[in-house]
Amino acid sequence: MSHDLDRSSPAAPGEAASRPDGRRPDELRPIGFRNHIAPHAAGSTLIEWGQTRVICAATVEEAVPRWMKEQGVPGGWITAEYSMLPYSTLGRKPREISRGRIEGRTQEIQRLIGRALRAAVDLERLGSRTLWIDCDVLQADGGTRTAAITGASVALRLAIGKLRADGLLPSDPIRHSVAAVSVGLIGGQPRVDLCYQEDSAADVDMNLVMTSAGEFVEVQGTGERASFSEEQLASMIALGRSALSRLFDLQAAAASP
Amino acid sequence: MSHDLDRSSPAAPGEAASRPDGRRPDELRPIGFRNHIAPHAAGSTLIEWGQTRVICAATVEEAVPRWMKEQGVPGGWITAEYSMLPYSTLGRKPREISRGRIEGRTQEIQRLIGRALRAAVDLERLGSRTLWIDCDVLQADGGTRTAAITGASVALRLAIGKLRADGLLPSDPIRHSVAAVSVGLIGGQPRVDLCYQEDSAADVDMNLVMTSAGEFVEVQGTGERASFSEEQLASMIALGRSALSRLFDLQAAAASP
Amino acid sequence: MSHDLDRSSPAAPGEAASRPDGRRPDELRPIGFRNHIAPHAAGSTLIEWGQTRVICAATVEEAVPRWMKEQGVPGGWITAEYSMLPYSTLGRKPREISRGRIEGRTQEIQRLIGRALRAAVDLERLGSRTLWIDCDVLQADGGTRTAAITGASVALRLAIGKLRADGLLPSDPIRHSVAAVSVGLIGGQPRVDLCYQEDSAADVDMNLVMTSAGEFVEVQGTGERASFSEEQLASMIALGRSALSRLFDLQAAAASP
Amino acid sequence: MSHDLDRSSPAAPGEAASRPDGRRPDELRPIGFRNHIAPHAAGSTLIEWGQTRVICAATVEEAVPRWMKEQGVPGGWITAEYSMLPYSTLGRKPREISRGRIEGRTQEIQRLIGRALRAAVDLERLGSRTLWIDCDVLQADGGTRTAAITGASVALRLAIGKLRADGLLPSDPIRHSVAAVSVGLIGGQPRVDLCYQEDSAADVDMNLVMTSAGEFVEVQGTGERASFSEEQLASMIALGRSALSRLFDLQAAAASP
Amino acid sequence: MSHDLDRSSPAAPGEAASRPDGRRPDELRPIGFRNHIAPHAAGSTLIEWGQTRVICAATVEEAVPRWMKEQGVPGGWITAEYSMLPYSTLGRKPREISRGRIEGRTQEIQRLIGRALRAAVDLERLGSRTLWIDCDVLQADGGTRTAAITGASVALRLAIGKLRADGLLPSDPIRHSVAAVSVGLIGGQPRVDLCYQEDSAADVDMNLVMTSAGEFVEVQGTGERASFSEEQLASMIALGRSALSRLFDLQAAAASP
Amino acid sequence: MSHDLDRSSPAAPGEAASRPDGRRPDELRPIGFRNHIAPHAAGSTLIEWGQTRVICAATVEEAVPRWMKEQGVPGGWITAEYSMLPYSTLGRKPREISRGRIEGRTQEIQRLIGRALRAAVDLERLGSRTLWIDCDVLQADGGTRTAAITGASVALRLAIGKLRADGLLPSDPIRHSVAAVSVGLIGGQPRVDLCYQEDSAADVDMNLVMTSAGEFVEVQGTGERASFSEEQLASMIALGRSALSRLFDLQAAAASP
Repeated sequence: MSHDLDRSSPAAPGEAASRPDGRRPDELRPIGFRNHIAPHAAGSTLIEWGQTRVICAATVEEAVPRWMKEQGVPGGWITAEYSMLPYSTLGRKPREISRGRIEGRTQEIQRLIGRALRAAVDLERLGSRTLWIDCDVLQADGGTRTAAITGASVALRLAIGKLRADGLLPSDPIRHSVAAVSVGLIGGQPRVDLCYQEDSAADVDMNLVMTSAGEFVEVQGTGERASFSEEQLASMIALGRSALSRLFDLQAAAASP
Repeated sequence: MSHDLDRSSPAAPGEAASRPDGRRPDELRPIGFRNHIAPHAAGSTLIEWGQTRVICAATVEEAVPRWMKEQGVPGGWITAEYSMLPYSTLGRKPREISRGRIEGRTQEIQRLIGRALRAAVDLERLGSRTLWIDCDVLQADGGTRTAAITGASVALRLAIGKLRADGLLPSDPIRHSVAAVSVGLIGGQPRVDLCYQEDSAADVDMNLVMTSAGEFVEVQGTGERASFSEEQLASMIALGRSALSRLFDLQAAAASP
Repeated sequence: MSHDLDRSSPAAPGEAASRPDGRRPDELRPIGFRNHIAPHAAGSTLIEWGQTRVICAATVEEAVPRWMKEQGVPGGWITAEYSMLPYSTLGRKPREISRGRIEGRTQEIQRLIGRALRAAVDLERLGSRTLWIDCDVLQADGGTRTAAITGASVALRLAIGKLRADGLLPSDPIRHSVAAVSVGLIGGQPRVDLCYQEDSAADVDMNLVMTSAGEFVEVQGTGERASFSEEQLASMIALGRSALSRLFDLQAAAASP
Repeated sequence: MSHDLDRSSPAAPGEAASRPDGRRPDELRPIGFRNHIAPHAAGSTLIEWGQTRVICAATVEEAVPRWMKEQGVPGGWITAEYSMLPYSTLGRKPREISRGRIEGRTQEIQRLIGRALRAAVDLERLGSRTLWIDCDVLQADGGTRTAAITGASVALRLAIGKLRADGLLPSDPIRHSVAAVSVGLIGGQPRVDLCYQEDSAADVDMNLVMTSAGEFVEVQGTGERASFSEEQLASMIALGRSALSRLFDLQAAAASP
Repeated sequence: MSHDLDRSSPAAPGEAASRPDGRRPDELRPIGFRNHIAPHAAGSTLIEWGQTRVICAATVEEAVPRWMKEQGVPGGWITAEYSMLPYSTLGRKPREISRGRIEGRTQEIQRLIGRALRAAVDLERLGSRTLWIDCDVLQADGGTRTAAITGASVALRLAIGKLRADGLLPSDPIRHSVAAVSVGLIGGQPRVDLCYQEDSAADVDMNLVMTSAGEFVEVQGTGERASFSEEQLASMIALGRSALSRLFDLQAAAASP
Repeated sequence: MSHDLDRSSPAAPGEAASRPDGRRPDELRPIGFRNHIAPHAAGSTLIEWGQTRVICAATVEEAVPRWMKEQGVPGGWITAEYSMLPYSTLGRKPREISRGRIEGRTQEIQRLIGRALRAAVDLERLGSRTLWIDCDVLQADGGTRTAAITGASVALRLAIGKLRADGLLPSDPIRHSVAAVSVGLIGGQPRVDLCYQEDSAADVDMNLVMTSAGEFVEVQGTGERASFSEEQLASMIALGRSALSRLFDLQAAAASP
């Protein structure tokens, strides 16, 4: 189990004032993993990413969704659920079951997590089973969806490791690791890995999901307060790519036996 | 009311085989608008975009959402709802009310439409009112969300025109028009404005939303079947930009008195 | 496609004042049909009945309801759904999915439409399939349920025509056309085909559904503000019968190839 | 409390075979009332109508619906709820709460009961309060909605009597009693007050609601299996009128102190 | 049918003041049963327990729950549903279907009734069927759950008697009768069978469910306002036991043919 | 923060075979607390009780429930929510939001937790605020409700400590600590603190909730498979009392600064 914290590189003195926690524009928050937090899952980790904490767990169901059976699609499936625990926010956030329905934001995030994980796995090699990826936010300070994807990729690898150890998988279905990071435009300047305070202030908010082979799985840039030019888009993408390469190293260390 | 069809430019002979309807990779489907389709709305249009048809209507509520009142946010709000009519698809699509809940895809699309429209409007100038943007798909053949945004921008302009004619708005709150288009990667080649058949076959699917000032509001690229390189991302964006500039001309013609 | 308007007969001068739009007590509003409004449906029409507009579409499902299978009932089924689009009313009407449940009024109307259509069809000849009749109100100005039934009968005939053209039906299952009209008692006087303003003022409101063979399918008279005598009932029925015979002519013209 | 049974008049010998229980076509089933079955209600009765039993209770809420307050409508309101207890049918009928929603049939019936009761009361004299009419079917053998209306009118009178005795109503708001009866067309012949077995076999089913002043409140005739002529409509109405006059006598006896 | 009332023993003069209805601390309210209140049920009774009245009905479904089939559990099942009719309380209690969900209290009570009844029946001898126990409160004055259990045991015996008379059960699956009673601590003193007024004032509220063989099925003691000592627990149990033995006599008389 | 494990006393050699994990009948599983697991909560702890792990968090809302305001009840309120995370069980347990409703078992447990916590707090001294107690099961191996109560009492004390440190509470509203334990009857023998395997096999299952002053708050004994005598009840209570006294010591150590 890896629980070391990564502070990618020290901030230069003159830049400290520009971010609430004194990071440089290209600096990630400290990141650690507590594996096996939920022992009944096939694989699980608690990702601690700055003040954001997400429980990521992968469980195995020996069946595939009905549409796969009906359409005769071979192989398996990966599906994700995301939830914010009520005590994860500064004011208590009511459970979705209390309102009786899943918020649009939740649905959007769990669909994103599912797509991201499926993109890095050879579903045919998974066999006729479903991997459920559950991400429950224990503490929210910005970047819960990127932490969820990054942690879920580790939990998935642990679960696949267990399936292989149990002799249930003849070959490794994982093609790549998957990680995600946010980039924002604040006052016209790009910054990577926004904390909650920055996220609330950003003019443009972007989430990048990438495989460890260096290709994109998702690029989602949204400008509610301001639109953005093609040059700004390019500079945000460059900043994100660089941070993603550090995330793949952290994942590799966390998931190694 | 504008109902002319736009076939942006004729397809070159040798390329006809590459797309189901013989278009060039950079060619939009024919697009027209039937304004005032729903006379009780403040503004409405039926956008016909190839075989995709979406009713877009803007209605006015002289109140703002509760959170704006509670937080004392000045100005107005724009919110969107999206729905596929049950007879819009080749096999009948059950209404969401029959299942008792809104699908994740629907929520994602209506959140996207709302953000896109808000990005082009000065909400403070809107006054203390809500503009409801309803987009109901009458016929679906790919690109319903991009048609919805493009048509909604016209319906919004018509509604604002009516509010101004009624003396309810001292100045024009609309900063820009907003349009959207899809771009996909099929067999490694980018194509703009995918029809349903192409959409199903695409390795990467991207939606671009832009203002008539040439800046992005949303960039959403998703690779479920394949990941994509930075170069491929750049070529898709270039193709989309070019198509968007033609869409702004069509919108301007449709919304002119 | 028929889009001619029917103004059954000119109003006599002295009576113009008695109705909001100057009609005689026995005069229908102008009525037209825009067929094929929803090309993915097997049959569809937009019925324009005065200021009321309803999209009526018939789609085919190659299966029957579970109860028919379980009870071994031969033949097919016809079921209807009715909805008011949010921009169909002067103030925006929230979608039923937003409240999570179907209103009683909606259920009552869609049950009525279904019964009316089934009454005019030989369900055994329909084969083992379900015809879904969807009626979505685009603009509401009174009489939406009678317009829905009258338009649905045209959409059904178009859908049956398509099934027959496709060689799926050996014989025509349609026995008769079905039409509906409202009659009201206002200030003790009967009037046919109430617009919204009259409907709100009526003491008694009656809906008549009839087959083109001149027999009743439904007779629903309701007096919430006032009760009514047997003589008044008879005079309302006479007024409705006369209007219904004109409606059958309009339907025949609209559905002819 | 009245619990006498009414067998309106003896059946003639030769006709016994034509109805399952040997009644003449114009003969009602025996009807009785057990008042005060639910002592916490302001007024209540158990109506026993052949093998159909319905608990009818009227309770008082010292408030009016929100729409009345908002629109400044003076006076009070009457609203009804209808439910079939799970053990009222031969096979157990699941509670609506188990399915999470109210059936269309239930909504239709409770709207009908509410309209019927309101038609016979001067709502302004009721004062600023709501009378809730609850009808719960204890045993169902056809005619539950007509029994509910007929019993509810008695429960309402008992509740009004209590309000008057308590000094809460300066004058009597009840204008008339209200009763209801079914008439059906079976094999082309009209019969009054169908039991379940007849109801299932009827070609046309009609419900008549009338005030004790002899005027109609509702006339609802439905022909799902067959349409009906104007002559058949007239003969059904005549049969129903005659039965309704006997029902008013039974109600008067049941509600007398 | 037994409808005699039981007033277990006369109250001693000096104690009358201590309880709202003058009972001694160990005295039950009068209890009676009206069997066959719901003739379509296999067995039913209206238990009248002081001012509390509950309709208890047992219906038979010739199938077992899915989990029994899937797990291959032999024999049958008993399940219970509990509901308060809206007119059972002094102020009208809205139906649960109006709020769209079952209250926690309701679920707790119906689970308790189900467990209690199952405890006294040999489920294997029941055969492959489900007995549904429905308890609908007609009038609530405290002790509705204990009345429901006590009445349900009688309804169950009547239903089993019918099944045996119909030749559907080779041997009697009922091992014991089951009855329930409440005991409370008010001002430090234990009292049996609390009415509503006492229930609201009790510091500790206890429900005891016992078989006619003198063994406990449930012991539920709750102190929301005050905690209780082991001695107080013992004295409440002793008081309850004594009352339960009288209840078994009343049940035996009620269920005897 | 206390994270020491308590193994109350070593098992005697000869008894090892009788329990799945070799404990003596009166022996608790090892218990530890990780405080501050959810830093955004006012107080939180992860209770690890054998293989059962529950996140317990207390958050503060500066408002009271509507019924308290309406009835003018002084002071504050404590309410609890309980949930099993989907990866807490050996096979994945679907989230309640997926089914759209809260299970009866969940409601029963969260009502129990709320009552237990309220019993040990002086609600008037709490001030006009609500303490939300959330208990989310991370790993389930029997006894989740007793672990939830025992952990919640620690989380509550931490939250109250924070409120007092913040100067928001003039005096300590906590009267006692509250703890809970299960006792079961297996093969006629009482055992304390059942793990999942024992729980499934128990004839009688009992939960005892007690204050640190030695008085009961809840006594819930249920015999679904078997009924139990008064002697057995007494022996179970004795076993539970003894275990509860050890739990109070562990709580005191965990919550001490």
